[in-house]
Amino acid sequence: MSISVMKFGGTSVGSVERLKRVADRIISKKNAGEQVIVVVSAMGKTTDQLVSMANEITSQPSKREMDMLLSTGEQVTISLLSMVLQERGHKSISLTGWQAGIQTEAIHGTARIENIKTPVILRYLNQGHIVIVAGFQGVANGNITTLGRGGSDTSAVALASAFNASVCEIYTDVTGVFTVDPRFVNKARKLKEINYDEMLELAYLGAGVLHPRAVECAKNNDITLVVRSSFENEEGTVIKEEVSLEKERAVRGLAFEKDVTRVTLLGLPNNLVSLSQVFDLLAAHHINIDVIVQNVLDEENVSLSFTIINTSIEETLNVLENNKESLEYQDLKIESQLAKVSIVGSGMVSNPGVAASMFHQLAENSIKVKMVSTSEIKVSTIIDEKDLLKALDVLHAGFKLSDEVSKVY
Amino acid sequence: MSISVMKFGGTSVGSVERLKRVADRIISKKNAGEQVIVVVSAMGKTTDQLVSMANEITSQPSKREMDMLLSTGEQVTISLLSMVLQERGHKSISLTGWQAGIQTEAIHGTARIENIKTPVILRYLNQGHIVIVAGFQGVANGNITTLGRGGSDTSAVALASAFNASVCEIYTDVTGVFTVDPRFVNKARKLKEINYDEMLELAYLGAGVLHPRAVECAKNNDITLVVRSSFENEEGTVIKEEVSLEKERAVRGLAFEKDVTRVTLLGLPNNLVSLSQVFDLLAAHHINIDVIVQNVLDEENVSLSFTIINTSIEETLNVLENNKESLEYQDLKIESQLAKVSIVGSGMVSNPGVAASMFHQLAENSIKVKMVSTSEIKVSTIIDEKDLLKALDVLHAGFKLSDEVSKVY
Repeated sequence: MSISVMKFGGTSVGSVERLKRVADRIISKKNAGEQVIVVVSAMGKTTDQLVSMANEITSQPSKREMDMLLSTGEQVTISLLSMVLQERGHKSISLTGWQAGIQTEAIHGTARIENIKTPVILRYLNQGHIVIVAGFQGVANGNITTLGRGGSDTSAVALASAFNASVCEIYTDVTGVFTVDPRFVNKARKLKEINYDEMLELAYLGAGVLHPRAVECAKNNDITLVVRSSFENEEGTVIKEEVSLEKERAVRGLAFEKDVTRVTLLGLPNNLVSLSQVFDLLAAHHINIDVIVQNVLDEENVSLSFTIINTSIEETLNVLENNKESLEYQDLKIESQLAKVSIVGSGMVSNPGVAASMFHQLAENSIKVKMVSTSEIKVSTIIDEKDLLKALDVLHAGFKLSDEVSKVY
Repeated sequence: MSISVMKFGGTSVGSVERLKRVADRIISKKNAGEQVIVVVSAMGKTTDQLVSMANEITSQPSKREMDMLLSTGEQVTISLLSMVLQERGHKSISLTGWQAGIQTEAIHGTARIENIKTPVILRYLNQGHIVIVAGFQGVANGNITTLGRGGSDTSAVALASAFNASVCEIYTDVTGVFTVDPRFVNKARKLKEINYDEMLELAYLGAGVLHPRAVECAKNNDITLVVRSSFENEEGTVIKEEVSLEKERAVRGLAFEKDVTRVTLLGLPNNLVSLSQVFDLLAAHHINIDVIVQNVLDEENVSLSFTIINTSIEETLNVLENNKESLEYQDLKIESQLAKVSIVGSGMVSNPGVAASMFHQLAENSIKVKMVSTSEIKVSTIIDEKDLLKALDVLHAGFKLSDEVSKVY
């Protein structure tokens, strides 16, 4: 018997009624002869409600206590879903992260999975149970940890890997991966297939349909992912290493992020260690950095800009200001209400005109590019958040992303 | 340094605002030089909300999954309370049942605590932390268990015993233990002291202020309990072995229960094993029985009546009907909407007229007694639930429970 992993996100399990529909899908899979591991998120707005309770108390809750608090969300879902399945006459068992053997780094809020101890789940699978695991959470040294944003996707992929699952299906509130988030651009088109690297870059597409960590984990372990709707029976998007379709397209889709803040350190000493000092320090505080740009001002000084998400502003400023002397920078500037827009496609590497075309389209529409960063399959620009929708429309049309492209063999 | 255990019930922690008031009390205790272990229940109506979600799914949820579901309630409270204390500058740590080392029987819904592994809590106490433990829950073979009604009180007492605490304070929404639940009888009076046995019998007094299991655990381990209000600074009621006050009073207070159902088995074979067969069977299904009365009908047959709480009706009927042949009874009758009223007092044993006086008072007020059961310090009667309030008023006045009695040395 092969093992299937099915992951259902917060909207898919947002009410008892929806849990019953989720149960239909699980039971079909089980009846098709699969052993089934189900991973679920917290129901609907539960996490938001818990966060707002914590915020009534403090703006900076301890991360350990936040993990303790937030992990209850998935625990409620697993128990209720298990009841639904049992009521329908199926054997099922719910397991929290620690019960499922999901061991993580000893970090709170953004822990990575280190190891999955398989005996407990294996025993239940072999007894014929549908195993329902709380996503987003694990355990480290007896403390409950959480995996941070997109954590449940990562839980699902890690379980698929640990149990050699034939497939890892991510059920969500969209029908697949789109050329761009369809909530923002009308003409967005659903992709049939996409490779891991493209998906990694597009990860925030389509209502944040899949977290990059989950994609990376799938890539590293060669797990075929399917992103599909838990509400409609449409085919989803398959994510795997080799993609046969749409080969000649240079740009596969657009990715974007809002709530971006740029931090600039002026007058940093122009030496070999100043950069690593800054980012070592931020890493030690688990502050995620995105785009980094460094300019030389003169022989002694450089300026360094990088982007963070808005929610990290307070902590970032604290850390940088408390270490002004050791970092030896002269001034610190901050600019919020920015957005990041990226074009993504593995065809880009053999097509040097793509970045130029992007800048051209933006300039023609009076959208100012504030930072640029490139990779082999992506060009990212930082722009004002107010220009975001216009930029998406312009680029989606400019790169003809609405058009289906005939297969190329 | 001595260790104090403080337990706060659901109403006391019903909102973030209330958690802040609870924190005041905890901080005072800590500042007085005590090491503090705090036990909390789920906030306000959380448990009810969780139960009603389960009931949307099934009328008979698996007990394991119910434990999984309900245990999230306390987990939310401990994390939020810990945040409040940390925000006030105190070191604190929240621990679930399994993290706190609370090991129980492998039974769901009504597990008893078997053992508390102390190293984790001890380590945190010695590091100067206020330790906040989720009440009502434990762990057995890696599964989350719950202790059932009054479980958080039991958690508190068990922790007080395991850590040799100097005192175990139960903070609740009443100011102490009363002669009768003050919500039902105006003239109820607060007791200064009461001994374990009386408290055991009165356990349901005063809004179910303390669960009998907790009292029993305190008695067995000689833990002095204090029941007091978390909202007012009044002195509470001390519960301990030797009580010096009010010695000459025969009746200390009244206890009662609503939602009582009487089950009667007619035509049971009159042999040595029939009774034990019935109660073995019910015990195997963890159905709690209260008052038991057996009558001989004739040489071959006996009738057996016992009371259960209303929520056990369905399961009790299932069990009894499925085993009608092996139990060999002829008919089964059931009567609901009954109540139990008891008079309690350790002076009763030397005062044989007390029971007679109780029956006399009830009869004079046309209250029909349907079943009777007695112990050394208690006389219980089963009456129609509609007569309950009248019975309480009559007995509270009849036994002069509103009057303070002068000390007797």
